Amino acid sequence: MYRYKITIAYDGTHFAGFQKQPKQRTVEGVLQRAVNKIAKNPVKIIKVYGSGRTDAGVHALGQVVHFDIPFNLSENAMLHALNSILPLDVEVLEVRHVPAEFHARYGTQGKRYQYRLALGEFVDPFKRNYTGHWKFPLDVERIQAALPDLIGKHDFSTFCAAGGHTKTNIREIFEATAKFDEKQNEVIFEFYGSGFLYNMVRIMVAVLIEIGSKKRPVHDIQRLIQAKDRNEARQTAPASGLYLKKVYYPEEFEK
Amino acid sequence: MYRYKITIAYDGTHFAGFQKQPKQRTVEGVLQRAVNKIAKNPVKIIKVYGSGRTDAGVHALGQVVHFDIPFNLSENAMLHALNSILPLDVEVLEVRHVPAEFHARYGTQGKRYQYRLALGEFVDPFKRNYTGHWKFPLDVERIQAALPDLIGKHDFSTFCAAGGHTKTNIREIFEATAKFDEKQNEVIFEFYGSGFLYNMVRIMVAVLIEIGSKKRPVHDIQRLIQAKDRNEARQTAPASGLYLKKVYYPEEFEK
Repeated sequence: MYRYKITIAYDGTHFAGFQKQPKQRTVEGVLQRAVNKIAKNPVKIIKVYGSGRTDAGVHALGQVVHFDIPFNLSENAMLHALNSILPLDVEVLEVRHVPAEFHARYGTQGKRYQYRLALGEFVDPFKRNYTGHWKFPLDVERIQAALPDLIGKHDFSTFCAAGGHTKTNIREIFEATAKFDEKQNEVIFEFYGSGFLYNMVRIMVAVLIEIGSKKRPVHDIQRLIQAKDRNEARQTAPASGLYLKKVYYPEEFEK
Repeated sequence: MYRYKITIAYDGTHFAGFQKQPKQRTVEGVLQRAVNKIAKNPVKIIKVYGSGRTDAGVHALGQVVHFDIPFNLSENAMLHALNSILPLDVEVLEVRHVPAEFHARYGTQGKRYQYRLALGEFVDPFKRNYTGHWKFPLDVERIQAALPDLIGKHDFSTFCAAGGHTKTNIREIFEATAKFDEKQNEVIFEFYGSGFLYNMVRIMVAVLIEIGSKKRPVHDIQRLIQAKDRNEARQTAPASGLYLKKVYYPEEFEK
């Protein structure tokens, strides 16, 4: 068997999320169908393994997936074969041959998410599926002052929606930024961490919006981390603004 | 009756075009429903008048529409009322009180269209509904050299699809530009003219792509204008790249 690592972008608008589900259109589903069409292996259905799930409506700029097929196709041939089969809301950006030790899910060293929050009174029709939206005043400097409180290794139970199932809620955030893009009238958040709990980025963004609109004290995140209680942060920013931007692996697999 | 001029943006992806059609979702249809909901006039259905049609999948950044309702609402109140009723793929950008002499269709002095053509081997999933796509080499300087041939008053019959019905095919193009946006890897065309025939911009773009990819001589447009024959220019660039950017009226109505 030959293992392929692929990096993909997708518009999550018309997917019921990444993970395969019966009778639903999912990214995993369309990928698996494409890979099996190429492999033409009648004996056993070939599975595809993503770095992790994304919810319905969440987008990807650099999701990573691996799969094995019983023959050796060049990286470029695989790229063209997949893109010619896949629907237009999924694009394979890169294909790499990787050794069997590579695992898209278990081998991750970190992930980077972006969140686009559109400001302004009304929703821009061209952004409705590609941003969150906030029509009230927002103090971006207040948000920027709060971001360092997220950095480091913490128990993020307050920022975890029910429905996840992980051994521990401890994660490390390496980087958290918020920039105001004046031309687009958007706040662009970025979060780079060891891993993220279920809905964690969207809950963090919702808390940061509350801080930016003065509904919470600037350093409330310190208290929220201590509390380890989701009831302290009940809001979740909409899926439409969230992008899985990059998945990190040990250098040996990065080309 | 009080006449209102509204400027709207819409994502044309999920509309069967601007013009009302039975059993189809159209921009005119959703606007008319919204206006009648506000007017609550049981006697007579209030009609809305657009500056012109746009086809299915074509977008607008500044379409203009007028309608009359029997009471005087402030511009700002009308803006909020309409945006609270309209679906998220249509946004009212501006509302103006205008005298009864203003007519969105018959009063136009010109229109400006934009066409976004994405380059690159594969379709970007986030651009599939918002650009045309060209994966072969394209010489933008060749296109720029051809553009002046469009300028002026010409019979554009070669650039007119069947299905239009106008008295004359003579139109004047005031401005035609093509810029390469390196960051987006797109060619952005703009056309400003007295008016445009059915599918005219999309046929012009298709011809310009043929010139840019050396399938036609640089100055073939001069010959095409003389020919007055659609068979000489059979291609039509996809609707997804086209945006009605601005509609021009006499200064007295422009605020």
